[in-house]
Amino acid sequence: MEASKSKKQTILEAAAELFRDRGYVATSMRDLADAVQLKASSLYNHISGKEEILQTICFQNANRFLAGMKEIEKRPINNTDKVKALIHLHIQIATEDFTSITAFNDEWRHLSDPELSRFKELRRDYELRFKSIIQAGIDAGEFVSVDTTIALFTIISAVRWIYDWFKPNRAISMDQLEEQIERILLGGLGVKGV
Amino acid sequence: MEASKSKKQTILEAAAELFRDRGYVATSMRDLADAVQLKASSLYNHISGKEEILQTICFQNANRFLAGMKEIEKRPINNTDKVKALIHLHIQIATEDFTSITAFNDEWRHLSDPELSRFKELRRDYELRFKSIIQAGIDAGEFVSVDTTIALFTIISAVRWIYDWFKPNRAISMDQLEEQIERILLGGLGVKGV
Repeated sequence: MEASKSKKQTILEAAAELFRDRGYVATSMRDLADAVQLKASSLYNHISGKEEILQTICFQNANRFLAGMKEIEKRPINNTDKVKALIHLHIQIATEDFTSITAFNDEWRHLSDPELSRFKELRRDYELRFKSIIQAGIDAGEFVSVDTTIALFTIISAVRWIYDWFKPNRAISMDQLEEQIERILLGGLGVKGV
Repeated sequence: MEASKSKKQTILEAAAELFRDRGYVATSMRDLADAVQLKASSLYNHISGKEEILQTICFQNANRFLAGMKEIEKRPINNTDKVKALIHLHIQIATEDFTSITAFNDEWRHLSDPELSRFKELRRDYELRFKSIIQAGIDAGEFVSVDTTIALFTIISAVRWIYDWFKPNRAISMDQLEEQIERILLGGLGVKGV
């Protein structure tokens, strides 16, 4: 059971990589079988097809972000620290699990309904919760007055390049990277001495 | 001559849209001919193939960014205003010309050498020039001390979501959008009273 689950994760990650390099449409189950060194017939023991892979990647990651959000919402900390924790969440998921990029970039568009609508709803829920925290920070005088939608997308996008760029052997450590990005983004919201 | 040039631009934009929706690999010349309502044989009067389209999109946009950069470098303004002008350049190109997103997101990966190396070189040139301006701003005491690479990618990524999101009928105008993003990003570099 555990071994099969881990095989599935391997397949998901290989699929996410193929989706990035070739696009979802151009990736065949045969390409995927080759990538994970399985026969196509064995691949179907783990996964029913491309659509299931895309669904799993998208919902696994949407739920991960939402679970992180709900945990952060409950913490007895101010909004500045909540935004910091959310930036940390995005950086952590992006660097730990490659498939999250696939879900949050363009590939979710290839979902079909009802999954497409359900995914958009989860994303919208996440975005609204994020905006509420920014708004609460503005109301509490922690942040300068900015449009919460613009602030939200600026923050989310600003951490999205990390996966493409960050390699563990770079001169800068993950902690330094995170600290600097937090400083730029929270400084941008008017927080002093981040 | 003019008419044919404009037809070519229509083809480039339709191609960029198909590349985004299906990926470069999965887009056929037939798909493209359908999208611009031409027969495949007529399409070849305008363009030699997919590779030419991708090359044109990538180099047209790389040159556009570099030309904008060189013009901004020469202006007799401080580094804060240069970074502001660069943010404006990115927003302007992203909202005016859809194909720029294709060039700057993933599709450039599908170029073949020598074009791939040449494109990477242009991009690297652009990034180095951008980082020099950030460094000059730090040296002049305009910005707080940040890692210039992190600041660069944070700024470039932070303006990348606009195309996906901004529609002229939104409650917020393009000018307001730009002003707020500038405030967040320059505030993040420690500039007071942006």
